[in-house]
Amino acid sequence: ELVSLSHDFFCDKYLQGQHWVITAGPTREAIDPVRYISNHSSGKMGYAIAHAAIRAGAKVTLISGPVNISAPVGCQLISVISAEDMHQQALKFAPESTTFIACAAVADYRVANIASQKIKKTNDAMHLELVKNHDIVADVACLPNKPFMVGFAAETQNIEAYARGKLVRKNLDLIAANDVAKSGQGFNSDDNALMLYSAIDKTEIPLANKQIVAQKLVSLINQHYLAKQI
Amino acid sequence: ELVSLSHDFFCDKYLQGQHWVITAGPTREAIDPVRYISNHSSGKMGYAIAHAAIRAGAKVTLISGPVNISAPVGCQLISVISAEDMHQQALKFAPESTTFIACAAVADYRVANIASQKIKKTNDAMHLELVKNHDIVADVACLPNKPFMVGFAAETQNIEAYARGKLVRKNLDLIAANDVAKSGQGFNSDDNALMLYSAIDKTEIPLANKQIVAQKLVSLINQHYLAKQI
Repeated sequence: ELVSLSHDFFCDKYLQGQHWVITAGPTREAIDPVRYISNHSSGKMGYAIAHAAIRAGAKVTLISGPVNISAPVGCQLISVISAEDMHQQALKFAPESTTFIACAAVADYRVANIASQKIKKTNDAMHLELVKNHDIVADVACLPNKPFMVGFAAETQNIEAYARGKLVRKNLDLIAANDVAKSGQGFNSDDNALMLYSAIDKTEIPLANKQIVAQKLVSLINQHYLAKQI
Repeated sequence: ELVSLSHDFFCDKYLQGQHWVITAGPTREAIDPVRYISNHSSGKMGYAIAHAAIRAGAKVTLISGPVNISAPVGCQLISVISAEDMHQQALKFAPESTTFIACAAVADYRVANIASQKIKKTNDAMHLELVKNHDIVADVACLPNKPFMVGFAAETQNIEAYARGKLVRKNLDLIAANDVAKSGQGFNSDDNALMLYSAIDKTEIPLANKQIVAQKLVSLINQHYLAKQI
């Protein structure tokens, strides 16, 4: 009985015929040839979702910033560095997808004028002028034939309010929120806990290994996706 | 003959009795709880030097920023995040060392006011105010009983002029310079090529695996160190 249950859970190809595009990892915004701005995303959550979606039978395109983990066997890996690279690749692959998962921690701002040579530290202070990057998930959600849209919100305070605001503002179907200020979950941790919000409900995925959280999340996303097709 | 040569080269404990303090990797300067400024240093060169120095019989303290490689067996690893952390640890361990190798790519500037919560992208532009960090290698070189001082210069142009300027300005015994703009060497590469400058001479270490470059560099540093003791 347990064997057959776990067989169903791990091996049922319930995403067969779907194409998931998943963004993962951080982006790096160059300051000069040696310095950059980035963030603490390890890519683990996005890679775990890619892995779980492949096991469930989906075709997966993984658009990833620079990380130190290996891509799951069977995915199409598109490696990028900056947010603008990721934006370009996301708009290229999203139109052919059924589901778009924006799990990457994309830099909101890039450096206005990237120095072509290493900046010398001649001054006691330095000013970096930053300009806003394109909003990848919002732009994908504006596509005429937009896929089922799942965003992420990594927050340090007022989690639900920010997450629900983002869900509506960016025209998403679902948003998965986590509290990156809590130790032992979120950025660079092997574990995570998520709250998944739709316009009308919310579901908790309790603290667990990111592989387990990803399996539950993939299944939940698919349930919402199927409900929308009716 | 070859066996005995390679035995001498790899196993002769010619650094026995010496204590090397080596800084390695990048530093990360927080912008807020999720974003930071860093650089492309992988830590590979500093870790290879630590490995070579341990094999040559030195006691090694490795003060390292966040990297994705394992510390060599037998070293004392001091993990740090920011340049100010590294400065503090360097000044703690340097006074008891014979040789100080400043291989880390230390951030020259830190963010003036680190935000305690994730900064929201409400504005189209953003200004980051940066202030200069302490100069680790220069401060160690000002210690009353300063160790033998080896600096690094990772440059993208005018390599020799910058390197010789740094050697004099920071009161170093040696400086190892590399051109990080050349592909296939330097940051995040497995290979490197160095020019080692003293006040009176220069020695080239040609492009090779960083382990090989490190073995040659450690031997050359020791020759200069011994010459200074006479």
